[in-house]
Amino acid sequence: MAVGNVAIPDTIYPIEGVKLSATAAGVRYKDRDDLVVLEIAETASCAVVTTKNTFCAAPVRVLREHFATHSPRYLVINTGNANAGTGADGKRRAQEICAALATKAGVDTQTVLPFSTGVIGEPLNSDAVIAGLDEALAGLAADKWLAAANGIRTTDTIPKIASQKVEVAGSCYHVTGISKGSGMIRPNMATMLGYVATDANIKADLLQEMLGQINEQSFNRITVDGDTSTNDCCVLIATGAASSEMIDSPEHPHYSAVFAALTEVFVRLAQLIVRDGEGATKFMTVKVTGGKVTQECCDVAYAVAHSPLVKTAFFASDANWGRILAAVGYAGIEDLDTEQVDVYLDEVMICQNGGVAPDYTEEAGKAVMSHPEITIHIDLARGDASDTVYTCDLSYDYVKINADYRS
Amino acid sequence: MAVGNVAIPDTIYPIEGVKLSATAAGVRYKDRDDLVVLEIAETASCAVVTTKNTFCAAPVRVLREHFATHSPRYLVINTGNANAGTGADGKRRAQEICAALATKAGVDTQTVLPFSTGVIGEPLNSDAVIAGLDEALAGLAADKWLAAANGIRTTDTIPKIASQKVEVAGSCYHVTGISKGSGMIRPNMATMLGYVATDANIKADLLQEMLGQINEQSFNRITVDGDTSTNDCCVLIATGAASSEMIDSPEHPHYSAVFAALTEVFVRLAQLIVRDGEGATKFMTVKVTGGKVTQECCDVAYAVAHSPLVKTAFFASDANWGRILAAVGYAGIEDLDTEQVDVYLDEVMICQNGGVAPDYTEEAGKAVMSHPEITIHIDLARGDASDTVYTCDLSYDYVKINADYRS
Repeated sequence: MAVGNVAIPDTIYPIEGVKLSATAAGVRYKDRDDLVVLEIAETASCAVVTTKNTFCAAPVRVLREHFATHSPRYLVINTGNANAGTGADGKRRAQEICAALATKAGVDTQTVLPFSTGVIGEPLNSDAVIAGLDEALAGLAADKWLAAANGIRTTDTIPKIASQKVEVAGSCYHVTGISKGSGMIRPNMATMLGYVATDANIKADLLQEMLGQINEQSFNRITVDGDTSTNDCCVLIATGAASSEMIDSPEHPHYSAVFAALTEVFVRLAQLIVRDGEGATKFMTVKVTGGKVTQECCDVAYAVAHSPLVKTAFFASDANWGRILAAVGYAGIEDLDTEQVDVYLDEVMICQNGGVAPDYTEEAGKAVMSHPEITIHIDLARGDASDTVYTCDLSYDYVKINADYRS
Repeated sequence: MAVGNVAIPDTIYPIEGVKLSATAAGVRYKDRDDLVVLEIAETASCAVVTTKNTFCAAPVRVLREHFATHSPRYLVINTGNANAGTGADGKRRAQEICAALATKAGVDTQTVLPFSTGVIGEPLNSDAVIAGLDEALAGLAADKWLAAANGIRTTDTIPKIASQKVEVAGSCYHVTGISKGSGMIRPNMATMLGYVATDANIKADLLQEMLGQINEQSFNRITVDGDTSTNDCCVLIATGAASSEMIDSPEHPHYSAVFAALTEVFVRLAQLIVRDGEGATKFMTVKVTGGKVTQECCDVAYAVAHSPLVKTAFFASDANWGRILAAVGYAGIEDLDTEQVDVYLDEVMICQNGGVAPDYTEEAGKAVMSHPEITIHIDLARGDASDTVYTCDLSYDYVKINADYRS
């Protein structure tokens, strides 16, 4: 069961210039949508980030080649099979899918970007994907974001979708996005899969820069199990349909509002992945303040967020702050003065100056640990830098999900 | 249940110059040995390594101060409470224990080294420890290694003990050691607790150098959950009782044989910790060859050994090599040519040139995964360096042990 507020937004704004479809192509399972296609208007800008895992999947290698020279017109996403660890044959299959879609749609093969998610190391049934393309193209429509969010699910228990409207200086922009992922989650430069579109008109190189920055606050700050996937990809599309006004620099009067709306959608989509983390029963925000530089705050936050001992303690609702301190201690800050470190669970100070806080009681610890959403705030008291990472606990069900199923 | 061969040696050689005792002092639990004392002959050399966790426990801070100026005569070890995260009061209690023992034994306080293991963040019942010292000192004897191995256990399900005899050029040396630990195990410079003694006569600075080297092949190459403890300590004692021949350099004719015997005991003690890893059902050796430098082999081995997805797959006896490849891919070798990488489970080649091996069958994978001890061999095919790490799988029982008990 996903943790906390994972509601589908009341209003999902379509983005003019983007059409979607979801169909059941039978890639691995019968009778469930497993093929999603996005069509992007010719005038749109696109930005892409992909996994830093050197064992990146075949579709990631193909999409990097295509994106290097062409602006995308179609995204084609299959679930059920990641087409990873499949060598030259896997790359050929990814290319064949792009070529088949390009022929049917009358565009260049290089304007089609492939994405796959699912089991690693088995040959992708590319014939099934190709056979499903006619229905996928026929079904394209602007109002199918939710269907697409469902169509890209694998072990996800919920569809992940966020949508925002922002008005600035007489212009009205919309941002809508979807994501998927619940295990093998510790994105590095991108998450499992995320697709966000806006009708703002944003210059392509600025869009790529914005994606890089926003990604660092969203998909690159979540972890379920510390495992960086071979298939992580995130795409940001700006169709420009809402306005002829081109946002071409951070100084543009519309920039900040659009940046904020995009960030809100990205953070929501990233958090939804953690809320739906495999076996998750708690959503934890690990906030580290008082660092000398951001990187050390990030390192401490990830050390805590990855610690199996911290994660199992949260599963057990045990305010075992010793495990948090131990993780802070091995995060790699060699000159850390541990006698300055404070730790809070929400508003409850559990640890002051590296020891138990004088006013702390087990009762207060138990009360705060009973919440499904908890902020672990660690104050290093050595500077002004801060960073935040989102994670979930480690439960029996995490082991069950990953031991019982080949995923 | 511990995995594989965890037998107590048929012969446990006493080491002349070392006496031990184990008593029930009631530190946290009643009626179990929780106080171990080692007495070391005045003529012995000692070497010590301690945790690199910056949140090191009070006894670790005290022992570093004591060891800096004095050669140890007594080690005093309590279980049930780690005396970590206890601030200035914790340090005072550790010092009081040392002072009390020193007075009773008629030695300098600085020749006593304190060690604690158990729950973090609660005040140590130092009065109980001090009250138990008379009985502990009265019980000292050379043949109590096994009693001491039992006396330092916490969540350990077995005592961990190794003993060796080595003859070289007419001299006969003995090596005996004990260790403890089964969770919060990813030692950095030392493990939870390890005590090894030999009757060889080894110069103190050479002994420290040997301990550093041997530790890098044993306690610093094991991981259960990736959590580096606040209390890791390892002590190597050379009493010199077996021979007046002083081993004073690596060129000494006895050096290699003694080094090998020590290494064998250390590796055995380290592996016993993994075999007894919390919830372990499989003992995994992760061997990485063909690296450019040792560090990258070590990084890859630890990435695989820490991956919750790899560990749960092994728990499920699922030869899910895609998870192994994914972990290799995020281990941080940026210029890794993944199409050169081979992976074996024992003798079964599962992955060749970054994809599934042509002759691999699911049946062969299942057969090898049914073994309780498995070597994952990853060949990076880019150089001559290699490294090996030992770990265990991630099971329901790991979560149960760490969620159910405050440890």
